[in-house]
Amino acid sequence: MFTMKSIGVIRSPYTDTSQIPKGCGAQHNAEGTLEILPEFEQGLIDIEGFSHLYVIWIFDRAEGHELLGRPPTDTRPHGVFATRSPRRPNPIGLTVVELLRREERRLYVRGIDMLDGTPILDIKPYLSNVPADKLRRGWLAEAEGRREV
Amino acid sequence: MFTMKSIGVIRSPYTDTSQIPKGCGAQHNAEGTLEILPEFEQGLIDIEGFSHLYVIWIFDRAEGHELLGRPPTDTRPHGVFATRSPRRPNPIGLTVVELLRREERRLYVRGIDMLDGTPILDIKPYLSNVPADKLRRGWLAEAEGRREV
Repeated sequence: MFTMKSIGVIRSPYTDTSQIPKGCGAQHNAEGTLEILPEFEQGLIDIEGFSHLYVIWIFDRAEGHELLGRPPTDTRPHGVFATRSPRRPNPIGLTVVELLRREERRLYVRGIDMLDGTPILDIKPYLSNVPADKLRRGWLAEAEGRREV
Repeated sequence: MFTMKSIGVIRSPYTDTSQIPKGCGAQHNAEGTLEILPEFEQGLIDIEGFSHLYVIWIFDRAEGHELLGRPPTDTRPHGVFATRSPRRPNPIGLTVVELLRREERRLYVRGIDMLDGTPILDIKPYLSNVPADKLRRGWLAEAEGRREV
């Protein structure tokens, strides 16, 4: 077992999961703030130079987990590790956000898909892409294809 | 505080951090296996369709953290959240791997940069890239530039 602590909190326009865009073609353009606790502010030095960040956070309002679930993008069930379901064995969320600016211990970002008050575990620079011609998107591409028919 | 559990373990050719390629231009082509615990195997259903996965894992052999550190890629110190240092407030690692094949509860992958025996917390599908013309790589691009001079 491993124990994690919050390094800060997400300020988001979303207060209920029903407000967060989901499913095929959902756009995440919402802006919000990553408020880092004062004792970790020094860890943000030089972060302004990166255009995009990984935010690792906790689905703190998800309950339990299910190994096989039906995502909003499809009518068929898939294994939890092949989805972004909140009901995971470890309730960890991962979002890539665009860093707009930093004001001391506040990072203003675009691309928020978390609820207001969500605890942050870690922030890392986003450094590289997978080449587009190497990327396959499994059942999600198939589900999108079925919708287009 | 949040409690996390291992969902499996990484089988890697690396048994010591000195063996892992680091610094500017480091290539991560090593192959390894993600061995998921039997009780979580059902969560892998349909994962084969994805070419790339996010692996979220624990730096289980890192000790303590430092908010300002000198990464192997640069001679100057940077905030921990602007680096991939193992010495983080929450010792969480994140790696994008290419999925080569699945054999029951074993995922054979390329792009391993973890030590043998590393605990896995979560696996998620890698779904999209940041547009190349939107990506800025901060101090890392500067450090690479200084080396080329």
